[in-house]
Amino acid sequence: MTLQQALEALKQYEQTAFALGHAMGILNYDGSTVAPKKSAIPRAVTQSELSRISYELTTSPATVEMIETLKAHQTELDFVNARKAEELFRDYDRVRRIPMDRFVEYQKLCVESDAVWHEAKVNNDFASFEPLLQKMFDMTKELATYIDPDADPYNTQLDQFERGLTTADCDKFFATVRAGIVPLLAEVVASPHQVREPLFENTFPIPVQRDFSDYIMGVLGMDRERSIIGETEHPFTTDFSPNDVRITTHYHEDTPIPSMYSVIHEGGHALYELNVDEKLSMSVLGGGVSMAIHESQSRFFENIIGRSYEFCGVILPWLTEHFPAQLSGLTQERLYRAVNASAPSLIRTEADELTYCLHIMVRYELERMMFAGTITAKELPEAWNRLYKEYLGIDVPDNKRGVLQDSHWSFGAIGYFPSYAIGSAYGAQYLEEMNKSFDVAAAVAAGDLSPVSGWLREHIWQYGKLYAPSELFRRTCGEFRPEVFIAYLNKKYREIYKL
Amino acid sequence: MTLQQALEALKQYEQTAFALGHAMGILNYDGSTVAPKKSAIPRAVTQSELSRISYELTTSPATVEMIETLKAHQTELDFVNARKAEELFRDYDRVRRIPMDRFVEYQKLCVESDAVWHEAKVNNDFASFEPLLQKMFDMTKELATYIDPDADPYNTQLDQFERGLTTADCDKFFATVRAGIVPLLAEVVASPHQVREPLFENTFPIPVQRDFSDYIMGVLGMDRERSIIGETEHPFTTDFSPNDVRITTHYHEDTPIPSMYSVIHEGGHALYELNVDEKLSMSVLGGGVSMAIHESQSRFFENIIGRSYEFCGVILPWLTEHFPAQLSGLTQERLYRAVNASAPSLIRTEADELTYCLHIMVRYELERMMFAGTITAKELPEAWNRLYKEYLGIDVPDNKRGVLQDSHWSFGAIGYFPSYAIGSAYGAQYLEEMNKSFDVAAAVAAGDLSPVSGWLREHIWQYGKLYAPSELFRRTCGEFRPEVFIAYLNKKYREIYKL
Repeated sequence: MTLQQALEALKQYEQTAFALGHAMGILNYDGSTVAPKKSAIPRAVTQSELSRISYELTTSPATVEMIETLKAHQTELDFVNARKAEELFRDYDRVRRIPMDRFVEYQKLCVESDAVWHEAKVNNDFASFEPLLQKMFDMTKELATYIDPDADPYNTQLDQFERGLTTADCDKFFATVRAGIVPLLAEVVASPHQVREPLFENTFPIPVQRDFSDYIMGVLGMDRERSIIGETEHPFTTDFSPNDVRITTHYHEDTPIPSMYSVIHEGGHALYELNVDEKLSMSVLGGGVSMAIHESQSRFFENIIGRSYEFCGVILPWLTEHFPAQLSGLTQERLYRAVNASAPSLIRTEADELTYCLHIMVRYELERMMFAGTITAKELPEAWNRLYKEYLGIDVPDNKRGVLQDSHWSFGAIGYFPSYAIGSAYGAQYLEEMNKSFDVAAAVAAGDLSPVSGWLREHIWQYGKLYAPSELFRRTCGEFRPEVFIAYLNKKYREIYKL
Repeated sequence: MTLQQALEALKQYEQTAFALGHAMGILNYDGSTVAPKKSAIPRAVTQSELSRISYELTTSPATVEMIETLKAHQTELDFVNARKAEELFRDYDRVRRIPMDRFVEYQKLCVESDAVWHEAKVNNDFASFEPLLQKMFDMTKELATYIDPDADPYNTQLDQFERGLTTADCDKFFATVRAGIVPLLAEVVASPHQVREPLFENTFPIPVQRDFSDYIMGVLGMDRERSIIGETEHPFTTDFSPNDVRITTHYHEDTPIPSMYSVIHEGGHALYELNVDEKLSMSVLGGGVSMAIHESQSRFFENIIGRSYEFCGVILPWLTEHFPAQLSGLTQERLYRAVNASAPSLIRTEADELTYCLHIMVRYELERMMFAGTITAKELPEAWNRLYKEYLGIDVPDNKRGVLQDSHWSFGAIGYFPSYAIGSAYGAQYLEEMNKSFDVAAAVAAGDLSPVSGWLREHIWQYGKLYAPSELFRRTCGEFRPEVFIAYLNKKYREIYKL
């Protein structure tokens, strides 16, 4: 195969790979939003067939030849194609290092383990899940060792989910989190100035909340000709190109707050996808680059922008106008305090801005211990509960609300959690950098987020997967300094809780 | 390939073919209902890739070998597999009879012609479409001759869309329609007892109309765990298995009537799909068998059931309760007359029960003339307008509302229209047969459509594509007797218009 032929093949490969991913994504979106309840069976058949076709495409001899040809000529390629070759080769290389029988065994394990976990969580029955969980940790470590026999296998796992992220980065980050947030949280809990806003204990009709979502999407500056909002049990964002990005939310009639922050959080993910350079669309380099960079957008909008004093001032008139009976008397100050109430809790996905990283830290430490072999799966519940007590000061009443709460480990996403917390911390450095160019608080106070979006588009969004995530962050903010995040949290929460 | 291998290959083939069709169908449904406006480009890329994969599947040497092996062993197969072999062989055989270069040329023509038609319709510019339309008729005839050199090419076209339907059937049918409906319509138009119901000239809030759709779907007995309703510009039904059937409607704030009959019409299509034997699901024989059988379900529910005096009595309480300000004073008699008003009109898709077949007859006669070569595309508008005047007594003001109104000819669906009218006529024979088993009017009056559905499930729905459509109809109702339909129309409209 000549280079020219390989480049032609790449175009066709990208188109087919895009189409299969797009179809599977739409099936998933449709299934979560509007599809009838009993459609799960035909959908599962179709998803599995499309996965098979996709697998055959990526592992076909023609694709392998294309990848090897591109790789062999990498220095002759322009930057974009060189990066594509690098990405494709990396995935292919990782797969070919794993013995086929072990890979098949691992995939079987993922399916079985995920099914058992679902049941175990429902029944609060850790014992049934424990052998599979142990096997999952063992096999994950084994596979990481095939991929890079010379590296720390946990490091290989981190790198798989967040290119360039190392165990050293995480250790440094979580040490800073531990030293900074654990004592701060203890002070917050002990503060006599606790937040409780009775105005938000009322009935907020869902049709009005739907209008509120549209309003919020407008404030965020989302192009509604390229983005829609749906309703699902658990909010998520999905994208098919910068011309089709979808977020979902879940409405609670007794409060508009969770849905509002779902819309802002998913809106942050969506803005990223909406602003990837269209030239990268439907290509190997299309879409956001990584989980941490993605979470850094969503959590930046949700917390740093959306939970700022200035943002509360912007949305206050809409709220009091459309919920006049419920929110009469609400002020910017009261709204700001209400949306920033902090308290230790059991469930990661419901945690507030201050406590969120502690939930992640528990998981990180446990993954490290499991990889080091210092504990076994059998000991995980006890270790989980001990760390929740130590960091969050909270007693875990059962495994359902403890070690069984997240699905990640059940399908092999070990080394994935840290990116959530790192993404949160990145945001504080964006804020610091942005403030060198313009006054972020003043822009938000004016209700105009376009300088914020413009800055993120220029430094992050447009690039898609053109740079590895750690490189992209470094190009934007220099070294990762978790202390900036801790300082941000201290300033904010000491003020709110009058510490 | 052994028979056993071919049967294994068939299972896999059916699964993959189902998955690709399912994915394309979901993309289409999503695109018509919720997708953001600018999503058309990525969707077109994906649809075209999936079409290509689907084409490669059906034409691959492995598939051809499978089909030929099954065909060679057809007598050894059970009934279901023998029918599958027959269907697959028939499609394959048709395609292989057409020279590849002519087939490619034809496909190009379809794409070009459809695009030009869209523009021509918008601009009321028949001249721009005329050369492509002529070429489309010529090529369609040419291809039909390749498929069966000994047959009348129009017959081949009919058979392609509605297996077993012949030109002789159609001639007989339309002669009966012409003799029966044209004079009846003239009497209706001249009747002093015209229908005009001012109660339906009001405002009917769309949220209430949405509830009405749910109510109607309940009356029809649609299982809402397997069926949903969406909103689109043009109502349609789409299905992916008996576990996932979707209808859409379009609401008009100034009247609830069109949406109500869209829901009943599409509901008829949906009930058919929901009740195909699940053993045929996701197979070559899954889903409704043909256009005429499908329309015979939708139009049966829409007109024969939904526009019956008894059905009006069933839905009256809901309407007067939920639209108390608008519909106070509405009676069963007034509602019945209002929904059965008949008048000649220009647009087929908006035609009433009495005039609908005349619209089809115009198209049928023009297709026959074009195939016979007695007129050219250039002469179509004049011939169209002349026939509308002759049969419907109406002057066609422009080609946009005349010969350019339907898309069918632009994408090669020549010989397709008759099935719409035949389907309408089939319904009258269902009614006749059903009445031998139970009193249909009494069941409808009691608000219980389950005997109707039960009968249709037993005789039609469950079979999917297990029998050819003409055979299925014969098994159910014996010979096709269009005079039963004409008698039904006469009885109904003579009573309403006091003739």
